[in-house]
Amino acid sequence: MEEVKNYFKHHRSSHLSQLKEFLSIPSISADPDHKPDMETAASWVKESMQAAGLENTAVMDTGGHPVVYGDWIHAPGKPTVLFYGHYDVQPADPVELWETPPFQPEIRNEKIYARGATDDKGQVFMHLKTIEAFMRTKQELPVNVKFCIEGEEEIGSPNLDEFVEKHRELLQGDVLLVSDTPMLEKGRPTVCYGLRGLAGIQIDVSGAKGDLHSGLYGGGVANPLHALADILASMHDESGHITVDGFYDRVLSLTDQERHAYAELSYDEENTRKELNVPELFGEEGFSFLERTWARPTLEINGMHGGFQGEGIKTVLPSAASAKITCRLVPDQDPDEVVEKLTAHVQRKTPKGVEVEVTPFDKGRPFVTPFDHPAIQAAGRALETAYGTTAAYTRMGGSVPVIETFSQILNVPVALMGFGLPTENFHAPNEHFHLENYDKGLEALAEYLAEISENL
Amino acid sequence: MEEVKNYFKHHRSSHLSQLKEFLSIPSISADPDHKPDMETAASWVKESMQAAGLENTAVMDTGGHPVVYGDWIHAPGKPTVLFYGHYDVQPADPVELWETPPFQPEIRNEKIYARGATDDKGQVFMHLKTIEAFMRTKQELPVNVKFCIEGEEEIGSPNLDEFVEKHRELLQGDVLLVSDTPMLEKGRPTVCYGLRGLAGIQIDVSGAKGDLHSGLYGGGVANPLHALADILASMHDESGHITVDGFYDRVLSLTDQERHAYAELSYDEENTRKELNVPELFGEEGFSFLERTWARPTLEINGMHGGFQGEGIKTVLPSAASAKITCRLVPDQDPDEVVEKLTAHVQRKTPKGVEVEVTPFDKGRPFVTPFDHPAIQAAGRALETAYGTTAAYTRMGGSVPVIETFSQILNVPVALMGFGLPTENFHAPNEHFHLENYDKGLEALAEYLAEISENL
Repeated sequence: MEEVKNYFKHHRSSHLSQLKEFLSIPSISADPDHKPDMETAASWVKESMQAAGLENTAVMDTGGHPVVYGDWIHAPGKPTVLFYGHYDVQPADPVELWETPPFQPEIRNEKIYARGATDDKGQVFMHLKTIEAFMRTKQELPVNVKFCIEGEEEIGSPNLDEFVEKHRELLQGDVLLVSDTPMLEKGRPTVCYGLRGLAGIQIDVSGAKGDLHSGLYGGGVANPLHALADILASMHDESGHITVDGFYDRVLSLTDQERHAYAELSYDEENTRKELNVPELFGEEGFSFLERTWARPTLEINGMHGGFQGEGIKTVLPSAASAKITCRLVPDQDPDEVVEKLTAHVQRKTPKGVEVEVTPFDKGRPFVTPFDHPAIQAAGRALETAYGTTAAYTRMGGSVPVIETFSQILNVPVALMGFGLPTENFHAPNEHFHLENYDKGLEALAEYLAEISENL
Repeated sequence: MEEVKNYFKHHRSSHLSQLKEFLSIPSISADPDHKPDMETAASWVKESMQAAGLENTAVMDTGGHPVVYGDWIHAPGKPTVLFYGHYDVQPADPVELWETPPFQPEIRNEKIYARGATDDKGQVFMHLKTIEAFMRTKQELPVNVKFCIEGEEEIGSPNLDEFVEKHRELLQGDVLLVSDTPMLEKGRPTVCYGLRGLAGIQIDVSGAKGDLHSGLYGGGVANPLHALADILASMHDESGHITVDGFYDRVLSLTDQERHAYAELSYDEENTRKELNVPELFGEEGFSFLERTWARPTLEINGMHGGFQGEGIKTVLPSAASAKITCRLVPDQDPDEVVEKLTAHVQRKTPKGVEVEVTPFDKGRPFVTPFDHPAIQAAGRALETAYGTTAAYTRMGGSVPVIETFSQILNVPVALMGFGLPTENFHAPNEHFHLENYDKGLEALAEYLAEISENL
């Protein structure tokens, strides 16, 4: 392992030059004008895979922006690690807020500034350099590897499901490794082992055939806004516990081990309260902020409207009201079942005198790799060796549909070992990546391959 | 009187052209962009007064949109009728629901379609044409008249109190005549002897300093939309009874005489249900539809909004939510006291984790006149002569705050003799006015002036 680490050190300068080259390509997947840049970026990844020693490299058609594939499968009896990442980036607007141009990478104070520096080109680059380091120093890898680097993550991966389904055999592996989730905080290496899923509905309440004068009809005809308020208010109690019948039925309780691990993180809730500028944090009783946002399901009204919304007064009795609701789900909740329960609740709680329509939104399954799975524990040990400090085992409140795709179709455990920081402005101007985590991350990735080689 | 009626008949076509001209002016008092149109409409009214033969016409400053005044005081020993109406109209949103544009009047099936057709430009126009008919055919009026046509009725007449107070002597009369309340139903001429009052608040709920990602924060931070739904749902029970503490304290019970009189009207609730296209009518138990809407107070959400309102899904945890609420009040409720009670209720029901701000709207007192007053009886007789059928004596659910102003400051009886129908979509798209009531209404107004001349 010393040889691999030395390889990183001795080639740091030329590697960073290569990374700058990669970051210079404005591979904005959302913008059709950048289609040629998408192709350039895909070629760049393919050439970089070849240079690293990967085989069977290919730029593969998806119907949209291509996937770049490569593998090395010469470690018989050893597990296969599937690497996922993406070479596309967010748009750079508003460009005028960047201190240096988004596609002219610059290193300042040991951070590299560019669009894609942390999300996700910088981390895809680290994966490739980890492979290169083993191949150049040992002429082999401790495990089999496959790379699947896509170009549509920032636009919701519209073609990935079909691609993975179609190439199920090609992509099959024993663990999926992704470096696209943030570290808990600076200096705290993090392995994330769970993400929440998503389910949601739109509720449309209708009353009379048109808006009515509240003087003439008020008190004699049901008001859809009252009905909607009743329905929405009936979905939770005053502490934020969700009162939709059966909503929590399949929710896995946090294990003692997990609650202990989260408590050990000493998360600063007061700091979050101040940052958000709220009188107090709020949520289900008996759970910490991290537990509420990582491992408990939610039901949030994302928007609602009805009636007059202008300035001042309009004494109307509106004919319709709508709300959008999404739930973040946790294992083993089933999105379809949750939508059914929400729909039944809405119908049961709809007051007299109005009609209601419920429309489901797209869904995503929650995902968790068991805390004590060897792929997760190996990630924790690798991070601890590289950083010389305790690793944080976390779950995240958001949903990454891509993970669900791999988890469902390939049925592999997933280790989310990201090296970006939450403060690095991904999706915002002045995106950057701390080189401290570039250096330590390379070591951690190398350690991970070694760990996985022996312990999966 | 035949000459007057013939004048209406012979000039019907040119009068309707003039009315279309009046209705073409988008005099939306609530929208500052329409200030020039407000001035155009005021000038139009003034010129129309002059053409009718009124004197001392003037567009008078109020601090807001002006009042248009005119009079004719050459009937010594006869009573003075003060006409009140308004030349401002409601906003036309949602414009896309209009079959023909709101400010391009069109006559279809003997109805004239335009914003303001029934509320209240069409009826102000009838007052002016009644004067014109007498002046052109008899060169005099059977009574003295004064006109006070304001431009802020649809925004709660914020400057009228001061205006009437200031011009108390100028406006003094023996009876106030208003045509801004609807008929009970088609073919049923109506004189109204009571109106509900108005009180209302805007509720602004705020949470975190900005919109949050529902994945990262959902479940851990209070959602202002949930809070608003809780507050709104807490204001009524499932039958529509208002649960704001003390709300009904000062409400006068209906007398047996009144309940009997309303029952005698044989109001067709099923027909109303069908017209409104609702599964059932809805409201306080133990009261008929007429009782609920004429003599019981209400609390209606006129509008609410917060968060994402576009197409599809956005998993945001919004930072703010708002609602507008107005109450229709009945004697002897006090608007200020009601606003206090609403405010206290909102504050008491605001959940943890959010902040709330309550802003009162302009208010109006409820109003009732004894229906055996000569001014009311004369109205009934005039309607019966013009329509050839029994008149209904009613109270109405709407609020014309100005009625309380005139009643209090000038101490005059008020006859509410409106010619619109409840189905004419005032305050909604496709507002219209039945020409049948335009024609019969003109006759009734002429009869009323003759009646009042002899019987007040």
